[in-house]
Amino acid sequence: MAPSSRSLRAEILAVGSELLTPFRSDTNSLFITSRLNDIGIPVAGKAVVADRREDLAAAVGLALGRVELVVVTGGLGPTDDDVTREAVAEALGRPLDEDPEIVERLRARFAARGLEMPDINRRQARILRGAEVLPNPNGTAPGQWVEHEGRLVVLLPGPPREMRPMLERVVGERLGPLAAGARIYRRVLKIAGRTESHVEQLAQPVYSNWERWKPPVATSILASPGQIELHLSVRAETPEAGESTLARAVDELQAVLGSDVYSTDGRSLEEVVGGLLRAREWRAATAESCTGGLVCSRLTDVAGSSDYVERGVVCYSNRAKTELLGVAPEMILEYGAVSKPVGLAMAVGARERARVDIAVGVTGIAGPGGGTEQKPVGTVFVAVVWAGGQVVERFRFPGGREQVKFQASQAALNMLRRVMERAAGSGGVAGEGR
Amino acid sequence: MAPSSRSLRAEILAVGSELLTPFRSDTNSLFITSRLNDIGIPVAGKAVVADRREDLAAAVGLALGRVELVVVTGGLGPTDDDVTREAVAEALGRPLDEDPEIVERLRARFAARGLEMPDINRRQARILRGAEVLPNPNGTAPGQWVEHEGRLVVLLPGPPREMRPMLERVVGERLGPLAAGARIYRRVLKIAGRTESHVEQLAQPVYSNWERWKPPVATSILASPGQIELHLSVRAETPEAGESTLARAVDELQAVLGSDVYSTDGRSLEEVVGGLLRAREWRAATAESCTGGLVCSRLTDVAGSSDYVERGVVCYSNRAKTELLGVAPEMILEYGAVSKPVGLAMAVGARERARVDIAVGVTGIAGPGGGTEQKPVGTVFVAVVWAGGQVVERFRFPGGREQVKFQASQAALNMLRRVMERAAGSGGVAGEGR
Repeated sequence: MAPSSRSLRAEILAVGSELLTPFRSDTNSLFITSRLNDIGIPVAGKAVVADRREDLAAAVGLALGRVELVVVTGGLGPTDDDVTREAVAEALGRPLDEDPEIVERLRARFAARGLEMPDINRRQARILRGAEVLPNPNGTAPGQWVEHEGRLVVLLPGPPREMRPMLERVVGERLGPLAAGARIYRRVLKIAGRTESHVEQLAQPVYSNWERWKPPVATSILASPGQIELHLSVRAETPEAGESTLARAVDELQAVLGSDVYSTDGRSLEEVVGGLLRAREWRAATAESCTGGLVCSRLTDVAGSSDYVERGVVCYSNRAKTELLGVAPEMILEYGAVSKPVGLAMAVGARERARVDIAVGVTGIAGPGGGTEQKPVGTVFVAVVWAGGQVVERFRFPGGREQVKFQASQAALNMLRRVMERAAGSGGVAGEGR
Repeated sequence: MAPSSRSLRAEILAVGSELLTPFRSDTNSLFITSRLNDIGIPVAGKAVVADRREDLAAAVGLALGRVELVVVTGGLGPTDDDVTREAVAEALGRPLDEDPEIVERLRARFAARGLEMPDINRRQARILRGAEVLPNPNGTAPGQWVEHEGRLVVLLPGPPREMRPMLERVVGERLGPLAAGARIYRRVLKIAGRTESHVEQLAQPVYSNWERWKPPVATSILASPGQIELHLSVRAETPEAGESTLARAVDELQAVLGSDVYSTDGRSLEEVVGGLLRAREWRAATAESCTGGLVCSRLTDVAGSSDYVERGVVCYSNRAKTELLGVAPEMILEYGAVSKPVGLAMAVGARERARVDIAVGVTGIAGPGGGTEQKPVGTVFVAVVWAGGQVVERFRFPGGREQVKFQASQAALNMLRRVMERAAGSGGVAGEGR
């Protein structure tokens, strides 16, 4: 017997001794919390437990005494360290049975890659008696769903790309129907090219009023170098009430933040840029120095990007800038490789040689070495060239080498976005009106 | 009575309902873990608890039943939500007394800013009977240190800039002397190009013996697509004992894992490849298709990589493969853009045109579209060409677009590494003999 609707509260147990070192944090529980909240299930507690069977069995037992739903993530691998199956069996007082169908599926999975299944992987076919198997299309560890004395225990693998799709199905097919009623609705506004305090100064007077709305909208700001996100959430009885309240909130924020907002529908900056290229039937090329290929790599993270990414070049040496992009050696000598004219010449050269509609050039000093008084570490020039014109901007990014690289790639993608939005005369925001 | 040295194990409780939302994660515990580990205190578990007195009191009680040191962070503010003082008082069965000295200090702190102390701040002066006060130079919430029935409870504020300096003092002045001598020493072996179960099958017979060593070495495996890490740790009285025990353990693992291990000193694969290029005074170029620039971007994540990365090209179109690398259109027609001959021709073209010592070519199908029966999604060819020869390999990677991209970049870097190690006739591993 599963517990009935509404009464559900959850605890999340993340299993893994590595999560108790200074080097790893449990990020799975944030995703799990988000999806449970979406269907109105609050998370009452979470814990990280070492790979010790007795510790985990005790933690599962305690959680079952407090809440109706216990989600355990991790420890389903094939090794001795993977103790979740045995620990939960101990906590529930149920034996484990080897499922021959799973053994066969595992064997076939290995065979498809030309490998023989190591014998230890049989451990992954051990299923709690009475449990239902949750298939794992992205890995070898199946999940498990157990109803136990009016409570629910869900076992999920630890690797996010295996855990997430499995959780989505559990939420959609099993927990969603149980948790009928009020749900939490969310929207995320993503902003590039602004500091947290700038965004906060504009947004705070707006969202501080939302506490008095019925239902009230909660807001939180997540800031990382190069990207600010405003997370809005509302608990509502119906999808219509939730979505219309959020739409009003999003409109109010966009009125003050304008085109700094690049997405209101969850899309990444590279997806937004890809969508604009696709809509215009434009093809693009990149010419990178300090970003080392990151701009092109991010553009090609989007499925179908081969439709609009023609090529990219990474000119780490001056010779490459001249050979691949036609940047005059004299220009490099006169202004330096990190300069406005060279950034522009890189974009012009990329556009001409690739015969594409739009190109971006990025040159800068990622650090830690190479900075000067006039051009300190973090100085980056980004140029965009298209049929209708050209634009070049100078930036100064804080942080270490990888932060500078990421912020520079963010600036390059954001300039591509702004040029295309202006070229279309819309100034609109991705996701607007959806 | 405080517990005596050696016996100390810790649990960390982070208090705050906001840490149970999808947006905030408990980062304090990583810092606390690191500082405790430094003085040899392992963290046996950690949990996030809501701002509910009864939940927190229960969690503190349970933790005291399991470990000798319980560190509670957060919930020391002045508001109704701040329940840590009351919860710990309940768990320990001790009353809270208002400390008039602290009240005066708080008043003075507010007065210095021209403010009157709100009455609710008196709550921050409530001290567990028998506790010692830990001053907070960076905020209003003092910490507390309590010895209770041979165990220790430490209350720290939640804001990192208040918590961290207070913890540093607690570690330096109070815990350090208790945990005299022993510290935790760690090493990480990193492996590319093997599955978790393959590594486990070779490594498990080796490390399972280490439990009997004096001191015993603990091992955990971290696997993600394309990368396996073996984390070793040992608690030892002296740096010599710790390091020599770990060196022996690392040697034993290397004897079975061989050159699959690319690093034993924490270096990333791109750092190892960079180190090999630098040692040989070789320059490199990349020619990428499905990885979209990721190989070059990773190589240039390393500081100083402009010394050995000459250029990279991303040939997303067939035309770019021909124009930038001289790949014959007939070859692309005959074998397809994703094929062994084209991968090799890309590497050859990159090496010749860039006039470098070594070049890598990567072509494949990142998906989700573009797969065929002969060449399903995840099929990738990697070629490396250098003065001494050439090598090309076919791979089949599981997972979605970004996983395939990452695994392909990992394979490309790993082949560069293997070629250079063999070219030097060493077969050695980065970090070996350090």
